[in-house]
Amino acid sequence: MDSGRLEAFSDGVFAVAITLLALDLVISGPSSVSLATKLAAIWPAFAAYAVSFATIASSGSTITRCSRTSPRSTGRLLFVNLPVLFFVVSIPFATSTIAAYLREGGASASLAAAIYEGVFEGVSISFALLLWQAIRHEHLKVALTASRPAGPRSSSAIGNIGYIAAIGVAFVSPPASLAISGLVAVYYIFEQTPARDQPAPGADGSLPEDQAGS
Amino acid sequence: MDSGRLEAFSDGVFAVAITLLALDLVISGPSSVSLATKLAAIWPAFAAYAVSFATIASSGSTITRCSRTSPRSTGRLLFVNLPVLFFVVSIPFATSTIAAYLREGGASASLAAAIYEGVFEGVSISFALLLWQAIRHEHLKVALTASRPAGPRSSSAIGNIGYIAAIGVAFVSPPASLAISGLVAVYYIFEQTPARDQPAPGADGSLPEDQAGS
Amino acid sequence: MDSGRLEAFSDGVFAVAITLLALDLVISGPSSVSLATKLAAIWPAFAAYAVSFATIASSGSTITRCSRTSPRSTGRLLFVNLPVLFFVVSIPFATSTIAAYLREGGASASLAAAIYEGVFEGVSISFALLLWQAIRHEHLKVALTASRPAGPRSSSAIGNIGYIAAIGVAFVSPPASLAISGLVAVYYIFEQTPARDQPAPGADGSLPEDQAGS
Amino acid sequence: MDSGRLEAFSDGVFAVAITLLALDLVISGPSSVSLATKLAAIWPAFAAYAVSFATIASSGSTITRCSRTSPRSTGRLLFVNLPVLFFVVSIPFATSTIAAYLREGGASASLAAAIYEGVFEGVSISFALLLWQAIRHEHLKVALTASRPAGPRSSSAIGNIGYIAAIGVAFVSPPASLAISGLVAVYYIFEQTPARDQPAPGADGSLPEDQAGS
Repeated sequence: MDSGRLEAFSDGVFAVAITLLALDLVISGPSSVSLATKLAAIWPAFAAYAVSFATIASSGSTITRCSRTSPRSTGRLLFVNLPVLFFVVSIPFATSTIAAYLREGGASASLAAAIYEGVFEGVSISFALLLWQAIRHEHLKVALTASRPAGPRSSSAIGNIGYIAAIGVAFVSPPASLAISGLVAVYYIFEQTPARDQPAPGADGSLPEDQAGS
Repeated sequence: MDSGRLEAFSDGVFAVAITLLALDLVISGPSSVSLATKLAAIWPAFAAYAVSFATIASSGSTITRCSRTSPRSTGRLLFVNLPVLFFVVSIPFATSTIAAYLREGGASASLAAAIYEGVFEGVSISFALLLWQAIRHEHLKVALTASRPAGPRSSSAIGNIGYIAAIGVAFVSPPASLAISGLVAVYYIFEQTPARDQPAPGADGSLPEDQAGS
Repeated sequence: MDSGRLEAFSDGVFAVAITLLALDLVISGPSSVSLATKLAAIWPAFAAYAVSFATIASSGSTITRCSRTSPRSTGRLLFVNLPVLFFVVSIPFATSTIAAYLREGGASASLAAAIYEGVFEGVSISFALLLWQAIRHEHLKVALTASRPAGPRSSSAIGNIGYIAAIGVAFVSPPASLAISGLVAVYYIFEQTPARDQPAPGADGSLPEDQAGS
Repeated sequence: MDSGRLEAFSDGVFAVAITLLALDLVISGPSSVSLATKLAAIWPAFAAYAVSFATIASSGSTITRCSRTSPRSTGRLLFVNLPVLFFVVSIPFATSTIAAYLREGGASASLAAAIYEGVFEGVSISFALLLWQAIRHEHLKVALTASRPAGPRSSSAIGNIGYIAAIGVAFVSPPASLAISGLVAVYYIFEQTPARDQPAPGADGSLPEDQAGS
């Protein structure tokens, strides 16, 4: 029950944040410039929107997968959940900033890209902390040992390393920095998709009902 | 539980997206032009708002009806759910764009209408993919065979064909294009409303409690 | 389950709409005019915000009380739920319009107030329709007959009549029109609050656990 | 069920309000001023964002902890829940106002800070009222007596006194006023985090499953 409400609050934050992203995609009203020209001019907004969408979506689904084996949440889990929410809520701001400055080039574009990747790094680190707490307090033990012993830990490492690299690349090529975080998001989405058609035995820490007796 | 959180996340996205639509309906403060004149000038915003509202509402209720027979969601269901959310989240942007350019006419209005219908086509196709996956993996088997054998498949076809036609019509008459998607939304809303007063036996894959014994 | 998701979607829409109201309360950045002067100048925004908040909150809690006795929702309930959501989603627009034009006076202020009250009338009528459907199909039978035989019907009448009066008054005195809808909202909030400290036997259609045996 | 919907509505409002905070963090598009200069110029927006985030997050988690022992909500609980939601929904407005005026200094900055702290005081007082009602009607009895006899009452006092002090300080030093509410939020976050690794016996009013037999 308590765990459910913390989850509902987190899910709500993820849902609102992912929907607010699209508020950046604003085209000003009719003017002498055609709509096609305007749309072409704001391609960074579309690119940043797609990357942010994929990042929030994959983060949200990781949280969904991780917490389902923890029937109750302690105050400590709530505590380590806050940084995740803090950085997720910051994503729309970081997205709108990189969307506005990516074409600008120069120091401002690099700074905007570094902030963008920095927020993602914040999500990644706070996520790793959340998983580490959850594993340490055995909320996730079954799910992790059964189906993917090194899963979340190595996954977190890929995000952490990818975003740190992207922060560095931001000062050389902001668009390349954006592309790196896009690849990380794509990796996470595919990494979470099981190749098998049937849910794996360890997917929810127990055998599926229709296989339990076989 | 896991399925429930994916559903809660999706429901949240639909709820936020449908409420954000109304943010387009902004009247600038008092000026020399009367409010009545301003309201009349933004009729495309009201028309697009109504069509988008009906589309999101009917999509949201379809998802509600479809998923209730899948007690658990696999990673694959999550994966095919993402495109649906991506296009739903894009609807407020597409709505505000067509609202701003519909009266403009010319190439920009056609492009705005084509984008608007293209986003709806995206919702429709990704929805069909979601249903196809769900049917293939038998999450929806009972509900579909019991009450409406060809239901979702033919319904998806009507949306897909309607929106493709609307994209074409956009380059001839943007308002007519908007009207087509309005008709599709009205069709879906009525298509989901059972003509009978009592819930049909197959509506939730089982007999209602008060009829089970009769 | 299905009923639960429709409820979750509705609750989400109410929650987002009530929170978006506060977006109207925007103070532009520092200028030669002091903050106190600016705040005083936008008193209609605060008044409209308070009335809209109370209206959405009381509507939301009525929905909460009404649906709890309907264990499942039919397609028809979904169908009659849509108009309620449509008008609720329109409240932030109507609120921002009356907030912008109330001080203006003249025909624009009257029109803004009439739209505002008209949206509330829409909520009220579609609500009455929802209740009528729910009662007719016996989803609400127990709750209504047990504790308040004429409750929702007379309540709906008060809202319907109050908002129609407010639409008329809008063309004489827009602020008085706003005040009428404020009184209706206050009425609904208090009308829903039981005077007794303990939950009434009929409040959820059954005796409380601790009184069931006495 | 009914209690669950009221909770879901409240959780939704908290989730939307906390995510809307980040909408204040808007950087206008490229201009002659560098992004770094602009970011430095809006430090009050970041500070106010952080304080508001921490305040909503800690309030939200307090609600989560408090209500879990109340299996049903009476109309009265709904009634006392409304003021909490009213002030929480006002936080984004208060945050954007202090963010805009804090650097301004003078009477406007003091007024903005006083409004900001006044909204927090409103949250705190309405929260205390909610707790008082819940305790009086014994919804929270077990949780409170078992693990922390004076908990919520003394906690509420710290918030109430802290925010009243901050309102006074606002007229001397607006930034110091902001800092005080930041400290209160940090206190609440840590106060809710149990020092023990295992959930305390009284945390949910019953012994954990794995300790129940020992």
